[in-house]
Amino acid sequence: MKINHNGVTEPTGFYACGRYTGLKNKRRDLAIIYSIVPAKFAGVFTTNKVKAAPVLRNIELREKGCDIQAIVINSGNANSCTGNQGLIDNELMADSLARVLKINSDQVMTASTGVIGVQLPIQKIVEGIEKSYTFLSDDRQGALDAAAAIMTTDTVTKEVSAQFMIDDVLIKIGAMAKGSGMIHPNMATTLSFITTDINISKLLLQKAMSESADISYNMISIDGDTSTNDMSFILANGLAGNEEIVIEDNNYKKFKDVLDIINIELAKMIVKDGEGATKLLEVKVSGAKTIKDARTICKSIITSSLVKTAFFGEDANWGRILCAMGYSGAEFNPNGVTLQFKSRYGSITLLENGLPLNFNEEIASEVLKGYVIEILIQLSDGNEIAEGWGCDMSYEYIRINGDYRT
Amino acid sequence: MKINHNGVTEPTGFYACGRYTGLKNKRRDLAIIYSIVPAKFAGVFTTNKVKAAPVLRNIELREKGCDIQAIVINSGNANSCTGNQGLIDNELMADSLARVLKINSDQVMTASTGVIGVQLPIQKIVEGIEKSYTFLSDDRQGALDAAAAIMTTDTVTKEVSAQFMIDDVLIKIGAMAKGSGMIHPNMATTLSFITTDINISKLLLQKAMSESADISYNMISIDGDTSTNDMSFILANGLAGNEEIVIEDNNYKKFKDVLDIINIELAKMIVKDGEGATKLLEVKVSGAKTIKDARTICKSIITSSLVKTAFFGEDANWGRILCAMGYSGAEFNPNGVTLQFKSRYGSITLLENGLPLNFNEEIASEVLKGYVIEILIQLSDGNEIAEGWGCDMSYEYIRINGDYRT
Repeated sequence: MKINHNGVTEPTGFYACGRYTGLKNKRRDLAIIYSIVPAKFAGVFTTNKVKAAPVLRNIELREKGCDIQAIVINSGNANSCTGNQGLIDNELMADSLARVLKINSDQVMTASTGVIGVQLPIQKIVEGIEKSYTFLSDDRQGALDAAAAIMTTDTVTKEVSAQFMIDDVLIKIGAMAKGSGMIHPNMATTLSFITTDINISKLLLQKAMSESADISYNMISIDGDTSTNDMSFILANGLAGNEEIVIEDNNYKKFKDVLDIINIELAKMIVKDGEGATKLLEVKVSGAKTIKDARTICKSIITSSLVKTAFFGEDANWGRILCAMGYSGAEFNPNGVTLQFKSRYGSITLLENGLPLNFNEEIASEVLKGYVIEILIQLSDGNEIAEGWGCDMSYEYIRINGDYRT
Repeated sequence: MKINHNGVTEPTGFYACGRYTGLKNKRRDLAIIYSIVPAKFAGVFTTNKVKAAPVLRNIELREKGCDIQAIVINSGNANSCTGNQGLIDNELMADSLARVLKINSDQVMTASTGVIGVQLPIQKIVEGIEKSYTFLSDDRQGALDAAAAIMTTDTVTKEVSAQFMIDDVLIKIGAMAKGSGMIHPNMATTLSFITTDINISKLLLQKAMSESADISYNMISIDGDTSTNDMSFILANGLAGNEEIVIEDNNYKKFKDVLDIINIELAKMIVKDGEGATKLLEVKVSGAKTIKDARTICKSIITSSLVKTAFFGEDANWGRILCAMGYSGAEFNPNGVTLQFKSRYGSITLLENGLPLNFNEEIASEVLKGYVIEILIQLSDGNEIAEGWGCDMSYEYIRINGDYRT
């Protein structure tokens, strides 16, 4: 298997473009992904009760079981909390792309990201679509432009791709995602788009995607806020030509492994580029009674503002980690906890079987200088494990979010 | 009824002091409250699975049904995550005060607040108790010194008191609390101590205190982190001489009303002095299907980092409020929400029955200049209401928490 950062045009038959239409100031704001044949589709969606217009429409399309041939995404406006007008505008967005691509509207999915509660400048988007689709290309530039066009407060594009063999057939998979605030996916995900030319049943595609989201996007948090627009799509157009995967055999497992790598890689890229982030926190819990307990503990730690600010300050205030574990709702024995920090500069144990150690502050301080900090937690309650990713919380987070709309 | 800010020595028979023992740098760090007769006790405790040593001991005392005559509180160290040594030290702290006051150890409650995961400097505390108890006084200074001694990152002392009549008897009640980080009480509370000379049954004292905590401390949040040390006590020594309240009659209701005022006032003082806070946010939800839904929505809004930073930036980014409502888990119809901001500078409606309004940004900006911002939410789901209090999130919050231990 080979991992690259080539994006959504990596698999056979996928085109993309990213263009400027005037929704954002001087930056690309409209992306289109296109498959030359209809593709099977699977996706996971935000569990937020307030769902943006495109989320509602895509859930409907999934329920109808439509095959999908194109996705249009705008940044700069989330089309969320926009009432009935938002639904109409979103439909128009899909219709416009369907018309120029000469496909059906229900083969087009939509996504929006940006400010909430402002009506979509739909005229600009419709004109943008009409001008943009001719720029669709299946090369690296097309993918890169699309990845750039979905950025909001992101500072870097987020793409990852892979190639692997199933029987004698080369399978390709490509993906892009956006961050970088309002990130706390819950049984769903942030905005990410994955393309692949694998031939697989719709049922297994959805199963793989859902399970993969649970150990990737659902295990990250930037600020504890679950967005109204979270979605993750995968399109599989079958053009690789492998025999269709219809049972959970070895080939399915191979695909699922690669999909996990892709999704975890994207999830980590999102966290690394979290608003104002200066450090990547990797929490690894082992010895938990259930997977749910292990995941809940990971999530609680990476969501705690007090934990996040302590790491920003490079302060080994480990009690805050125990505190966040304690209020997480997970079952565990506090007297059986061992806690360790680890980075490229070394490692240090702070708590052993529930007993605080007289650790050397200088060594702790050295360890915490690392950019990637592993927070290793050994419980005494069972054998389950989980991994989660977060970032620290800095002055920059406050600056970005104190004045997001202007 | 008269509301003052006289603290825990207000009721008849209560003494207090606050002294410096060397746990904190140049600030008072040991408080004692003493009743000249054993007092009935009620309390609510943190639901954090990791409970500090004093929390565990006090829960035991409550289960035993002990009457209480004294409370000793230290700041600068939370005696949390300190293992068996923490339990032994905490017991020693109670024993020391019992010995000098010539009462039983199980008539002494303890509380600690400060850094987690460091062993208590118990020798300093024992010596401090021996030197301090002679300073117990029933005047204003005693209460004030005690309120100062329980401060951690607090910038002001937090005291409130009241006097009211039951039949022809004057009843007095006094209280103090500390803030101001790791504040997200959950079916429990932050650290607060209430004294009263009312004569009331233990059962009703506990009932009143639990219900009062639910609409005061449990409706505030500073940073979403539920402390390992949260506790709220009330001591009732009966010295006012009223006939014992044993049923939920009018007299009980009078007492409960005053207790609610005291607790809500303390809760708001805690939030106002939240780490780095520059604004007080008052969320009022009406028209909810259940009280639980109304409370959940309030809590979710005041806990959202994105909402808090937007108010710090005086940015009318109201979509974040809808978003926080949506992921709260509460049941409500998003299309029936009306949202309004209000301050001393005016009011503005942003959303009406789920429809975003084209509001005037200049007026919004003016309204958001206020120190107290009311966030008024009208739902269309029922008749239940709730109120919650929070603060904004500023650069100062990051500074304080990036380097708390040093």
